[in-house]
Amino acid sequence: MKFICSQKVLASGIGTVQKAISSKSNLPILKGILLEAYNDKLKLVGTDLEIGIENYIEAEIIEEGSLVLSARILGDIVRKLPDDNIEIEVKDNNKTIIRCKNSEFTLLGQNPEDFPDLPEVEEDYEYTISQDLLKNMIRQTVFATAIDETRPILMGVLMKLEPETINMVALDGYRLALREASIKSDFEGKAVIPAKTLNEINRLLSEEEGQEVRIYITDKHILFNMNNTKVVSRLLEGEFINYKQIIPTDYKSRLNVNTKELLNSIERASLLAKEGKNNLVKFSVRDEELTITSNAEIGNVLESVNIDLEGNDLDIGFNSKYFIDALKIIDSEQIQLEFTTNVSPCIIKPTDNENYTYLILPVRIVE
Amino acid sequence: MKFICSQKVLASGIGTVQKAISSKSNLPILKGILLEAYNDKLKLVGTDLEIGIENYIEAEIIEEGSLVLSARILGDIVRKLPDDNIEIEVKDNNKTIIRCKNSEFTLLGQNPEDFPDLPEVEEDYEYTISQDLLKNMIRQTVFATAIDETRPILMGVLMKLEPETINMVALDGYRLALREASIKSDFEGKAVIPAKTLNEINRLLSEEEGQEVRIYITDKHILFNMNNTKVVSRLLEGEFINYKQIIPTDYKSRLNVNTKELLNSIERASLLAKEGKNNLVKFSVRDEELTITSNAEIGNVLESVNIDLEGNDLDIGFNSKYFIDALKIIDSEQIQLEFTTNVSPCIIKPTDNENYTYLILPVRIVE
Repeated sequence: MKFICSQKVLASGIGTVQKAISSKSNLPILKGILLEAYNDKLKLVGTDLEIGIENYIEAEIIEEGSLVLSARILGDIVRKLPDDNIEIEVKDNNKTIIRCKNSEFTLLGQNPEDFPDLPEVEEDYEYTISQDLLKNMIRQTVFATAIDETRPILMGVLMKLEPETINMVALDGYRLALREASIKSDFEGKAVIPAKTLNEINRLLSEEEGQEVRIYITDKHILFNMNNTKVVSRLLEGEFINYKQIIPTDYKSRLNVNTKELLNSIERASLLAKEGKNNLVKFSVRDEELTITSNAEIGNVLESVNIDLEGNDLDIGFNSKYFIDALKIIDSEQIQLEFTTNVSPCIIKPTDNENYTYLILPVRIVE
Repeated sequence: MKFICSQKVLASGIGTVQKAISSKSNLPILKGILLEAYNDKLKLVGTDLEIGIENYIEAEIIEEGSLVLSARILGDIVRKLPDDNIEIEVKDNNKTIIRCKNSEFTLLGQNPEDFPDLPEVEEDYEYTISQDLLKNMIRQTVFATAIDETRPILMGVLMKLEPETINMVALDGYRLALREASIKSDFEGKAVIPAKTLNEINRLLSEEEGQEVRIYITDKHILFNMNNTKVVSRLLEGEFINYKQIIPTDYKSRLNVNTKELLNSIERASLLAKEGKNNLVKFSVRDEELTITSNAEIGNVLESVNIDLEGNDLDIGFNSKYFIDALKIIDSEQIQLEFTTNVSPCIIKPTDNENYTYLILPVRIVE
């Protein structure tokens, strides 16, 4: 194998596939990047067996071939090389020469035949979505997945594809985040995608408008295809919770409030709530005013926020973290909070659209 | 005590004195900030008994008095409050009310009489230096202080004040950094200042030209006075090493090289040197070319750098870290390296001035 390519392009490609590589892997081959030089393209591949990332870059292929090189060392070297052409040449026994201007590295590569194949996902029934929309949908749901491993299915986000809509839902037993979007497609399907995969996808997605990602789903895998980068991931197995029956459709109190003002007040109240054990903040919902209080050994806090209330007064307690998480990712200036009783869930929705629903369970207040 | 001041100003003042406060302190009072409201000024004080920082801020004093509040909690609260006026009022038993717009915090303070006094340093024999020069001198020496505690005196930087010159020197047994500057003053004195103090001073010094800092030295303490902020620190006790006799005055080989090119080459070579045990890079000094090589199990590297050599060829080994540390803080585009033999120190100097001398001991190369 022998090829020449630009330092900047190669560094960026390595950065992309490195996201799939775990430095903690026990198999040395999985700490490597597979380089394949064929048909005037260089393909880079990294995988931890759960997720695999392929990146295609422009290169002048002088001799076709393939090789595996340590991702960490190759990445460190290429990032430190000057902005110029890099030549990579493989000699006998995977001995590899990297040349760039006044630098020459000789590295011992590994046998490309030992590198695992990524799962094959047929690219036929595709679902196309804009990258910035998917990025937003991930950001607005993935934080609500479960961290602890007692119910593995909750460590992923359910993606439900229906004709003309796409839904993403995450829940962890204390809160639920549901994001819906309209989209044109005939394809139906669903998949529970590990949070880890979505976090990596999120980093690869562009925020620029007009860029698309194509999604392909099989029973066990999902493939995201973004121009020169493909990500394939294992799916979580099992049935997702029937989330629709958890979300109340009725309410006894509904209030309108400014998102940023409410977030700031809860963040300040949580400074003392954190000092206690359970992050508890108390809401007193009254006509025109929501007061938020928190008590700790070192002191207490009282915050008041202007609201617009329809329905009953209410006193209710929450873990402030769950409120802060949600308010941080809501883009709308105004939100609605809906309550039924102080032991039933609170629903948060943007005032200006129906795209997003967030549910939080209250904490029982001991008087 | 009762006063009103701006949120931004108070947040900045807390940020300044917090640098002296250690969250690991065993004495609860040392985790606090002393607030003293007298004569239309609010004084904030933080200390860990090694270093103390005072900051004076503008405030409308309604009732004089003093108080100690937890630095962490007060800092978190004030930073999160809106950009508006903050009122702080102390009631009975150090109970403190903090009000700002729609927020009201009640905190339990501590008795200001329990707060330790900072050491008194008479502000008479002063030495004045511009803040940006002192900042540079700290940056160019402090990294060469010793980390390990076997010789405590080496954990500080010697500051030597002579009429018209100021010198700062640090050394750790493997390398030495000496920075000299001309300055107008009649004052003479010397002090070994702990590296930790200098790192905090560095953060407080302004990079803007025209700002000055006044320095006062006693047997055991040093005081830095910068406008509204005073820093007082304990000094390290004992005699500093006679560094002048360590620095060779003669050489057998001298070369001129571009600082940035040499730094980049050594950084790349060190990527493999790091994989070995001792960061070893080898220099081969020849006419017009310096080659830098490094070997590790995984491979090897050869870097070449254009030089301008006067004197003998030489092969010599170094710990790459010591070279990288020095080249990073030298501002000059071109430097000179001076060698005598491959077991005697290398001297690095800027080509365009005499302000800075850096010495590195070589590593013996086993052939």
